[in-house]
Amino acid sequence: MSGTIYLPDDRYFGPDAEQKETALHLYQAVKDLPLICPHGHVDPRVFADPNYSFGSPADLFIIPDHYVFRMLHSQGITLGQLGIPQRDGVTYEYDHRKVWQLFAENFYLFHGTPTGVWLAYEFKIVFGIDQKLNGKTAQTIYDQVADKLASPGFRPRHLYARFNIEALSTTDAASDPLEHHRALRESGWRGKIIPTMRPDAVINLDAPNWKANLDALSAITNIAITNYQLLIAALENRRAYFKQHGATATDHAALTPYTNELASSEADAIFQRALRGQATADDATRFTGHMLMQFARMSIEDGLTMQLHVGSFRNHNENLFARFGVDKGADIPTATEFTRNLRPLLNKYGNDPRLTLILFTLDEATYARELAPLAGHYPALKLGPPWWFFDSLNGMNRYFDLMIETAGIYNTAGFNDDTRAFCSIPARHDVWRRASCNWLAGMVARGMIDLDEAGEMANALAYGLAKKAYKL
Amino acid sequence: MSGTIYLPDDRYFGPDAEQKETALHLYQAVKDLPLICPHGHVDPRVFADPNYSFGSPADLFIIPDHYVFRMLHSQGITLGQLGIPQRDGVTYEYDHRKVWQLFAENFYLFHGTPTGVWLAYEFKIVFGIDQKLNGKTAQTIYDQVADKLASPGFRPRHLYARFNIEALSTTDAASDPLEHHRALRESGWRGKIIPTMRPDAVINLDAPNWKANLDALSAITNIAITNYQLLIAALENRRAYFKQHGATATDHAALTPYTNELASSEADAIFQRALRGQATADDATRFTGHMLMQFARMSIEDGLTMQLHVGSFRNHNENLFARFGVDKGADIPTATEFTRNLRPLLNKYGNDPRLTLILFTLDEATYARELAPLAGHYPALKLGPPWWFFDSLNGMNRYFDLMIETAGIYNTAGFNDDTRAFCSIPARHDVWRRASCNWLAGMVARGMIDLDEAGEMANALAYGLAKKAYKL
Amino acid sequence: MSGTIYLPDDRYFGPDAEQKETALHLYQAVKDLPLICPHGHVDPRVFADPNYSFGSPADLFIIPDHYVFRMLHSQGITLGQLGIPQRDGVTYEYDHRKVWQLFAENFYLFHGTPTGVWLAYEFKIVFGIDQKLNGKTAQTIYDQVADKLASPGFRPRHLYARFNIEALSTTDAASDPLEHHRALRESGWRGKIIPTMRPDAVINLDAPNWKANLDALSAITNIAITNYQLLIAALENRRAYFKQHGATATDHAALTPYTNELASSEADAIFQRALRGQATADDATRFTGHMLMQFARMSIEDGLTMQLHVGSFRNHNENLFARFGVDKGADIPTATEFTRNLRPLLNKYGNDPRLTLILFTLDEATYARELAPLAGHYPALKLGPPWWFFDSLNGMNRYFDLMIETAGIYNTAGFNDDTRAFCSIPARHDVWRRASCNWLAGMVARGMIDLDEAGEMANALAYGLAKKAYKL
Repeated sequence: MSGTIYLPDDRYFGPDAEQKETALHLYQAVKDLPLICPHGHVDPRVFADPNYSFGSPADLFIIPDHYVFRMLHSQGITLGQLGIPQRDGVTYEYDHRKVWQLFAENFYLFHGTPTGVWLAYEFKIVFGIDQKLNGKTAQTIYDQVADKLASPGFRPRHLYARFNIEALSTTDAASDPLEHHRALRESGWRGKIIPTMRPDAVINLDAPNWKANLDALSAITNIAITNYQLLIAALENRRAYFKQHGATATDHAALTPYTNELASSEADAIFQRALRGQATADDATRFTGHMLMQFARMSIEDGLTMQLHVGSFRNHNENLFARFGVDKGADIPTATEFTRNLRPLLNKYGNDPRLTLILFTLDEATYARELAPLAGHYPALKLGPPWWFFDSLNGMNRYFDLMIETAGIYNTAGFNDDTRAFCSIPARHDVWRRASCNWLAGMVARGMIDLDEAGEMANALAYGLAKKAYKL
Repeated sequence: MSGTIYLPDDRYFGPDAEQKETALHLYQAVKDLPLICPHGHVDPRVFADPNYSFGSPADLFIIPDHYVFRMLHSQGITLGQLGIPQRDGVTYEYDHRKVWQLFAENFYLFHGTPTGVWLAYEFKIVFGIDQKLNGKTAQTIYDQVADKLASPGFRPRHLYARFNIEALSTTDAASDPLEHHRALRESGWRGKIIPTMRPDAVINLDAPNWKANLDALSAITNIAITNYQLLIAALENRRAYFKQHGATATDHAALTPYTNELASSEADAIFQRALRGQATADDATRFTGHMLMQFARMSIEDGLTMQLHVGSFRNHNENLFARFGVDKGADIPTATEFTRNLRPLLNKYGNDPRLTLILFTLDEATYARELAPLAGHYPALKLGPPWWFFDSLNGMNRYFDLMIETAGIYNTAGFNDDTRAFCSIPARHDVWRRASCNWLAGMVARGMIDLDEAGEMANALAYGLAKKAYKL
Repeated sequence: MSGTIYLPDDRYFGPDAEQKETALHLYQAVKDLPLICPHGHVDPRVFADPNYSFGSPADLFIIPDHYVFRMLHSQGITLGQLGIPQRDGVTYEYDHRKVWQLFAENFYLFHGTPTGVWLAYEFKIVFGIDQKLNGKTAQTIYDQVADKLASPGFRPRHLYARFNIEALSTTDAASDPLEHHRALRESGWRGKIIPTMRPDAVINLDAPNWKANLDALSAITNIAITNYQLLIAALENRRAYFKQHGATATDHAALTPYTNELASSEADAIFQRALRGQATADDATRFTGHMLMQFARMSIEDGLTMQLHVGSFRNHNENLFARFGVDKGADIPTATEFTRNLRPLLNKYGNDPRLTLILFTLDEATYARELAPLAGHYPALKLGPPWWFFDSLNGMNRYFDLMIETAGIYNTAGFNDDTRAFCSIPARHDVWRRASCNWLAGMVARGMIDLDEAGEMANALAYGLAKKAYKL
């Protein structure tokens, strides 16, 4: 029926019927494997409070999700109309039913998009809703979702179990006290929620509020960070603390993957300029490039996996940024160069199998040209899954098509859902598992691999590779 | 039979049989929709004269069509041999039967190319020819085409009706008096042929004959353009005139999408240098970057849609350019960067839903990396269809694959045929409609959307989106 | 059975069943055509000695093949463990059975990769082995391969005939005396092994051991190369010598396709600086850019086809290079620009049909954006087949998808195997022939071309185009 959500059992497979059948066969064997979620942005508070509620349907699906509201914004709907609070505290629209109605009336915009696909899964499978969302069904579905959200089955800890999550990593500032993680460990709850240290705010000298971030790091470590050596000491101190709290990885974001080792004296000279508020843009670039190499060294020493996400031009829309702040759907990818930029780091540490450096890009032109050849050579490198805009059915197809012939699947890190939308986690893993099984089925159909080989590879892609790369 | 033109009813669909069937079903519902032709290069004179004739078969299919003769040139056939006139007035070959014979003998070069596909359609469906073109059939087919061209059914106004065109935009210099458009409106003919203002020749300070172009603009506006403010006044004057004559859009071509606002005094200083013949290359770049922002402002004020075509390195072949001039199949694409270059314009005007800025690129690496994320965020942006070399079956598949997951179809502007070959218009729309239906059928087959959704999307792609983006 | 090598007759076709059938039909007609091998790195010594033996299974399949050992290296296996000799003469592992065991235990890494596909063919079809290679079967298969290698049927001249090779080009330094080629011609053996002159070592002023290479060129030509004019004379002398020994082509490798003509005096000034050891990096770039234009001129004069391979950042891994030298799987592609870089050469020589310049890239972003439009315009240009990392099933699909609509197949140079692994030659041609037939079958299925046209194109791609482009 045209009014019901379309989510057939063989979705994302094919289109060839024989390939579909093989894909379904492979998928059956991996669909119930536990979910490994080694990189994402779910707030640990969600699990620390056993009675945490996601709020209203708009609180869950619209207001915090930049994938959703950027598309509505692109069609002239303002963030204010969607109930998104401004930085100055003003919220233009408090009526979440009105927000939901606007979302529903424009839901057709998501046809053929990954957000559309995830939401179909969340509505139908997580929330048990049959009807399609549109202007007419909006309020009925609002009620259905609200009812569920009020029920005990929709407490995050309950959903964690229902989603069959084996481990979930959060992303946390280097200065984060990790009190929610500590509370979680002390609560006796069996879920595995672990922190990931993301030190960008203190190592990127041009980060917003850099000095305040540094002060926070000083405070939490009891190290007055007055020079570069003390910065290193403080960061090593925090790594040990994160590791003690279950962390197995760090995460780094940069506009480019530039790396370059400085003499300690030079690193300190830059750091001193930064402390005096005199660091230049070039200082910031060189310092980050140097610190990435320091983090590689530390990873070799303490065994934490290192992640590097590059290429996002953040807060492209000045006006929107001024009014609403970061993560408002206005981060735009840029062309990226890995071959020359990563060379200093790889020449120093790339041959060391104790290092696991997982790379993420927003420039698919680098997949077959740079990333797969690099990962197909250096023992330290692994390829992160398709990221952000490419965490989609076609994005995954391109990733498999462009990466695997050169790198093989065993130089990848499996899948990350990388989401702050907790309820989308099973939907995202489902797309990955289906897409990977369908890709493998296509190789079986074309006589590239046999069914046994495909089965082993499906299992690795769904579960084993992520677990290994992140040492979970 | 191997000697007849191959144009099956289910062409461009599949290859999967079930997908073909769905595609055909979707296509049936859109194939007879009127054609919206909002951007192209057909000469308005063709319609202004009710008895206009296209000339000989070579005049129609070879001599004006750089898609055709560039391929022949690539195999060592000279433009002279193809009857193309030199700039100095010399034409090496006047015998159009000989030109046609050479074309026919080399027609196999077009196998698997969009030109081959369009010509198959034009020969078979527009001209009713069954036999394949080759050295043996050349003269028979020449006669058949020549007979048709001499018949009343092949007057352009008659073909316009037969092709079921609803509106067709031409592309015209800012200084164009639009006398053919005026004549057309006054003739009482019901066809809708509207102008588009393309001001490159006066705003790109390094355009060939810039001063002469400027003088023509002065003459037609009765404004002696002695400073920057008067240039703006003259351009606003022409926009009003074009709008009065039915225009709904302007068009801009640039090597890069660089934008940057100058102070008026600075813009005028550059303009004064240009008037003295002293503008530098950097002046030209900065002036164009500034004027694109002025045109965005004007579009917000008068409602004309703004088109921006970037990335073509024009007249790459110096020798050919010297002998034969522009548009001789020697324009070669270059890598393009949108994220940083367009930012000044988008920061000033991108959030304004009154602006419609349609982007075209020759660098597919920017599709998923830059264009789709930009269009998926800024209300003012729309994505133009695959352009030029990418106006092809595979080009469209890549466009859908790379653009839609992030931007959705509703941030696109549907299809443009962008042709100076009038008889290729129905062939080009047919490829687009078939390609889009097949892409939608593939999504249905893979359970991404259902048949109802696919039907709505097919209609929008075939008709509605172009009409809306160009306000037709 | 899961334990046997999977190599079905319809491999690499489909996945659509109807497309598979058409592909198989097309393939039947081309699979037995002789192999044209116009570019590769097989050592001519292999054929000069009628009793040449490939050595042990590890000598054949692992130690010389950087495609194989880079993948093992990427998983932390050292080149030393694989029996690869260091530059200082030390070899860590002499036991080829141990090397083979390690290879076999990690053979699953190649699932879904072109190396896996080629090795499956070589094991099963060339060596008649049924069992899959893994840790358990390693030593049995070692014995089987070793037995074959010891038999007369596995002498290279015998395999040359069995592989049905019509002509095979080697790649030789400009100063190479070609004694093996001379011996071969004098031996009366009927195989056609011809040299290709690759002058990089003397024209790239920053090549390792440039002065020694130049001295070797002086010695072999009896020309004391003390200035630029004498360098040109010596190179022209060697071209004549290569041509006399059957050569039909030269080959050039460069990091970028930069071209630029210098005045002779300027070229000589740079050359003099190089002789004094004072050439700068910029000198080297400009000299290579100039010499590429000189080679184009010479090609027009003597008719040798010119090949240009660009974009490989050689010896990316410093430590590995220091220990093991060149060609150790650490050459990484870089982004490449053709439109502007090649323009000087094309403006001077690109319209001359006597020149055949075949381009190879490692940056697929240039396929549809730059290379196909250039080759679809300039008579002198031809497109080399997908190179290196892209000599794979998906790489070929992308090549066809991205190149042919604009360039047509007749502006391509067919296929090169480009290998130093002689036994992989039939496997590589088999992938190309199957991939091209399947691509053509896909066009038939979609009604783009008919079966007759597909048949002609399959023949051209498998055989005719390479023969023509290389004048064999």
